[in-house]
Amino acid sequence: MDLQNFNIILFDEFETLDAFGPAEVIGQFSEIYNLEYYSFSGGHVTSKQKIKVSTLPFNKMSKTDVLMIPGGHGTRTLVDDKVFIQELKNLVQEAKYVLTVCTGSALLARTNLLNGKNATTNKKAFEWVCSQGIEVNWKKQARWVCDGNIYTSSGVSAGIDMTLGFISELFGEKLAEDASNHIEYIWNKDKNNDPFSLA
Amino acid sequence: MDLQNFNIILFDEFETLDAFGPAEVIGQFSEIYNLEYYSFSGGHVTSKQKIKVSTLPFNKMSKTDVLMIPGGHGTRTLVDDKVFIQELKNLVQEAKYVLTVCTGSALLARTNLLNGKNATTNKKAFEWVCSQGIEVNWKKQARWVCDGNIYTSSGVSAGIDMTLGFISELFGEKLAEDASNHIEYIWNKDKNNDPFSLA
Repeated sequence: MDLQNFNIILFDEFETLDAFGPAEVIGQFSEIYNLEYYSFSGGHVTSKQKIKVSTLPFNKMSKTDVLMIPGGHGTRTLVDDKVFIQELKNLVQEAKYVLTVCTGSALLARTNLLNGKNATTNKKAFEWVCSQGIEVNWKKQARWVCDGNIYTSSGVSAGIDMTLGFISELFGEKLAEDASNHIEYIWNKDKNNDPFSLA
Repeated sequence: MDLQNFNIILFDEFETLDAFGPAEVIGQFSEIYNLEYYSFSGGHVTSKQKIKVSTLPFNKMSKTDVLMIPGGHGTRTLVDDKVFIQELKNLVQEAKYVLTVCTGSALLARTNLLNGKNATTNKKAFEWVCSQGIEVNWKKQARWVCDGNIYTSSGVSAGIDMTLGFISELFGEKLAEDASNHIEYIWNKDKNNDPFSLA
């Protein structure tokens, strides 16, 4: 089987663990997924935690099997960047699966492709994210939500649980558990178990 | 109070979450710690999960309050790199605190500065790490170990628990819990609770 592309979108002031927790999980499946890191214009982007990462530009993305959108402080301005949101919408429409972590769901919401779907987000930024997509069915209590080909997770660390859940649904729980054990991660495998819920 | 430097050592084939889990935690304390990323020669280094990170060279490290050493596949060759180990030893001796994650403890062991001390490491690589420091008192059952100013953790994700534990010991449990809640992380706060133990 050809390797599938797992493309992670980065931008200045992205939240480190939102993006790199899932990357750690997906990196355990190098026989299935090829990890690549993209930003709108390519070049260096810097996370909130000051990690300076080299990225490829959006227009070099040849195919997208999975698109991952992290959150972070940088989303606060990007939601109003019409050119970015239009390009993101194109990438989302080409992807087989889309995963968002934390306030990454606000960017996805602004493409309107979350309208009418179930989704969740960071409970610390819940009201703001809801305001970015008033036609989305936002869940106050969920570690992560899957609706069709779209997975959305709660804040930061929840992205690791969701990515393991994504692997579990596609390839079986045994593979997800093996990966979780390999990185000595205590997996919260129940997507409805949300200790940080507002409900 | 002046910001303290929290310097993270990177090298090719470092394990992403070993380094960036702790970075995520420390990033919540930007009023205490300044995060910087270093490699032996500076420039780009690439993690096992293909993240290409820009780093400063060791010789630009002005002061080190905390030194963090991740693990990963890259440690397998670095343990035999005498020049790297000597430089690392100098940095360890200058640091007020040293934290290692996963097989990062093998690099620290090769400086001989772990001799006679209690430490732990990844349970999947336990025998190999032990062979890198036969005078170290390696613990088979521990999420993390603190001996004096040296903290060593189990594999990958355990680095997040340890870093929260480090914050808790220095600044109180409340601050660590707040940070854990902020990143929606289910903190395993008992350093003796090791679900991946070999014991």
